[in-house]
Amino acid sequence: MAKHEALLPHMQEIADLDAVLGLLSWDEETYAPAGARAGRGLQTATLEGLKHQRLTRPELGDLIEAALADPSVTGTDRVMVERFRRTRSLATRVPEALVKALAEARSLAMAAWGKAKNSDDFKAFGPHLERVVSLTRQRAEALGSPTDELYDALLDEYEPGTTAATLRPVFAELRGALVPIVEAIAGAPRPDTSFLEQRFSSEAQWQFTLRLLEDLGFDMQHGRQDRSAHPFTGSVGQKDVRVTTRIDEENPISAIFSTIHECGHGLYEQGFAPEHHRTPLGVAPSMGIHEGQSRLWENQVGRSRAFWQRYLPMMKTYFPGTLDGVDLDTFYRAVNVVEPSLIRTEADEVTYNLHILLRFELEQALLTGDLQVDDLPGVWRERMQRDLGIQSEGDTEGCLQDIHWAWGAIGYFPTYTLGNLYAAQIMATFEAADPNVWADVAAGRFAPLLAWLREKIHRRGYTAWAGDIMADAVGAPLQVAPLVRYLKGKFGPLYGLSL
Amino acid sequence: MAKHEALLPHMQEIADLDAVLGLLSWDEETYAPAGARAGRGLQTATLEGLKHQRLTRPELGDLIEAALADPSVTGTDRVMVERFRRTRSLATRVPEALVKALAEARSLAMAAWGKAKNSDDFKAFGPHLERVVSLTRQRAEALGSPTDELYDALLDEYEPGTTAATLRPVFAELRGALVPIVEAIAGAPRPDTSFLEQRFSSEAQWQFTLRLLEDLGFDMQHGRQDRSAHPFTGSVGQKDVRVTTRIDEENPISAIFSTIHECGHGLYEQGFAPEHHRTPLGVAPSMGIHEGQSRLWENQVGRSRAFWQRYLPMMKTYFPGTLDGVDLDTFYRAVNVVEPSLIRTEADEVTYNLHILLRFELEQALLTGDLQVDDLPGVWRERMQRDLGIQSEGDTEGCLQDIHWAWGAIGYFPTYTLGNLYAAQIMATFEAADPNVWADVAAGRFAPLLAWLREKIHRRGYTAWAGDIMADAVGAPLQVAPLVRYLKGKFGPLYGLSL
Repeated sequence: MAKHEALLPHMQEIADLDAVLGLLSWDEETYAPAGARAGRGLQTATLEGLKHQRLTRPELGDLIEAALADPSVTGTDRVMVERFRRTRSLATRVPEALVKALAEARSLAMAAWGKAKNSDDFKAFGPHLERVVSLTRQRAEALGSPTDELYDALLDEYEPGTTAATLRPVFAELRGALVPIVEAIAGAPRPDTSFLEQRFSSEAQWQFTLRLLEDLGFDMQHGRQDRSAHPFTGSVGQKDVRVTTRIDEENPISAIFSTIHECGHGLYEQGFAPEHHRTPLGVAPSMGIHEGQSRLWENQVGRSRAFWQRYLPMMKTYFPGTLDGVDLDTFYRAVNVVEPSLIRTEADEVTYNLHILLRFELEQALLTGDLQVDDLPGVWRERMQRDLGIQSEGDTEGCLQDIHWAWGAIGYFPTYTLGNLYAAQIMATFEAADPNVWADVAAGRFAPLLAWLREKIHRRGYTAWAGDIMADAVGAPLQVAPLVRYLKGKFGPLYGLSL
Repeated sequence: MAKHEALLPHMQEIADLDAVLGLLSWDEETYAPAGARAGRGLQTATLEGLKHQRLTRPELGDLIEAALADPSVTGTDRVMVERFRRTRSLATRVPEALVKALAEARSLAMAAWGKAKNSDDFKAFGPHLERVVSLTRQRAEALGSPTDELYDALLDEYEPGTTAATLRPVFAELRGALVPIVEAIAGAPRPDTSFLEQRFSSEAQWQFTLRLLEDLGFDMQHGRQDRSAHPFTGSVGQKDVRVTTRIDEENPISAIFSTIHECGHGLYEQGFAPEHHRTPLGVAPSMGIHEGQSRLWENQVGRSRAFWQRYLPMMKTYFPGTLDGVDLDTFYRAVNVVEPSLIRTEADEVTYNLHILLRFELEQALLTGDLQVDDLPGVWRERMQRDLGIQSEGDTEGCLQDIHWAWGAIGYFPTYTLGNLYAAQIMATFEAADPNVWADVAAGRFAPLLAWLREKIHRRGYTAWAGDIMADAVGAPLQVAPLVRYLKGKFGPLYGLSL
């Protein structure tokens, strides 16, 4: 028996603990009664502690090194062991005292953030953010950076194999291309969205989103949809993938695109190779490539004219009387309104990335200390004005809008834009490979696209870095041009502009 | 710091693992997608394994002994440590190879049981049952019996502090009293239940059962109700108690009494003292006393005339047009039909215990070897004929009806009858203490009864053996007379008989 086989039960144990942690968090966001919150926190901490303990045992380190010293452990098996070593190594690097201090600071900061956001009181949040940033800096130092930039220690957790230095020129090129598009569209008349301001039955929205999930290929034998305040996708192991959506009777668009977005994540989670289940290979290689899947389905597919060719007539049957006079082009334009806005999560395909680029720069500056927490609100407003031409009165709709930094998740934001870039590269490649794609989408046939994704991306799991999987899939490195071409090709005609 | 305090984190860890196992099993029965079953089994096994490992560490044994050797550890603290020692000791006694062999045999036997039950093929199940019985016998030997009867090793797990020798005369007295009641009622005309054979809207049933839960005092801030194929109560820690019900549109009685029954379990789980949460004291001391709570609410309260005085009019508003002509006495009689039947879970208050007594005797004989598995179907039929005057054609409605033995749960059945005896003792005591009880029930005021249960039983948790808690609460040892008096007092007038 090759040496890596002795590691399998240990890998399975950790995978099972991750699955159980997945269930704890899914349940907390969906069904857990309100009074269970404190106890759930303790249960989660206990399980995280056990996982950490099991992962960091010295014997496990010895088994890993023995497997890697065994020349008969090759190919995917070797990668599997390397991934396990990476997970273990990351877990061993941060001292327990720091883990605890950060967990406490985070918990306090998240509570303070919620209050500060509600009362538009950045000053009350500032000291908490300072503490989290300071501890996150210590955490980054403990993790160790693969480059001379501390930020890369954090980025590497979400986007292994990627560095700020790689992203910077890509993002700069993207900003250069986006700003003129935003400016051009700002001068054009706003599409009519008044017909969306009606009551769309909650039950019909629910049924319609279930229909979409099924049509897109989400496997209900190995997954389900529920409701939650903030839509998300979670896995209870690779055969049990859970997506959620949020239903607002006064805004049907919210649930529809939430469902399609999470479905994209869910299809990915359901698509790992069965032989990788319960191993370190049966997971996504990065957050960016994961977001690439959700954005692809949400934007490239879900906001396409072809998609609504099929689904607008169907939607009319789910919501009788609400959309009678609305034609395809009117609807298509309404779900593709582009306009500078304050809130990232509500931003359109064009402006969204400008929100991310701002955060990417500011979080690096916070980490290095070039930007002081006290100066954040002012700098935020300046940058919003420069990039999007608007700024908020207070900070609730400014630098207090996102929870990420309170949670210590510095290095996470860029993965959203990576996802958008990846999605555009994938669709450009698939369009070239399968000229029927839009006819298929207009007919509700998503199987060819899904099959391609399964083969090129999903099934590969974590057998390679995200960047390499993407490069193999699209035959090119990370590029800005496909996204810009896509945006110009879509929004030019949509707004009657020559972009 | 007294020595028991060093044990607290370890107790909390085990309590948290139990809570998480509770969530895994709740989810499996409620929301988990069909294809998740196999993976869920592995996750549960991993967690059970970790729990076993943590519990059986030698260091933990040393800490426990040190705490018990510390004379400053007294009273409830000492009991808490003793309970923890008991749990640990039970876990260490059964060799791992036997645990695994039994888990496998159980899993095979449960699958075989399902098939055999469907096709009425006892022969196909026999060898599996033989293996489970044989391994359960080995397990009993490994656990060690507190008496000279091996059966008590198993009974002691479900009903600590009770032995077969204590139960035998009690159960014999009960049989002696029940058989003549059953015979007398068999000669009386059957109450009219035809008005229940209508369609009762599933949604209205759901709303009605939620209303019942709330009225009875179930705390929805620390619990919830869902649907499952087999109703049950589970806890995800003491602040998160989950009951389920099953809704059949053609039988509204099923959901109503399932909900009230599980509510009884749920109120108990919600009633442990906060200072015992996450310790070995924040649990019920036995299955019998737990069942005493569920039976009390289901039968003594829920099937009383006073209860329906309030809830029949309310039920008419939940199900308009279905019960218009039905008066209180007709309804009361319909939910209290007594008749010999083949299936335990569908049996009424009078015949139910005869089903249990039969199983109690047969499972002892299976364990000692006095009864061979091959002879089980024949003996079952004989005994049904003798005790209830009926017998099934095949075994599906005979010795194949229950899953317990396939699952290795020998020693569990008597706790159901203990529950019925306890419930009658409790209600007789409470009636004497609070003469307003039935006026309160008729007015939907359940708080006085719940407050009494909370004080006398719930809050005590596992600070004493079930028998001692009961004796303190009702001022008497386990007795048959209160149940018999209750049954005669209820069913005599109901059937116009002098019992």
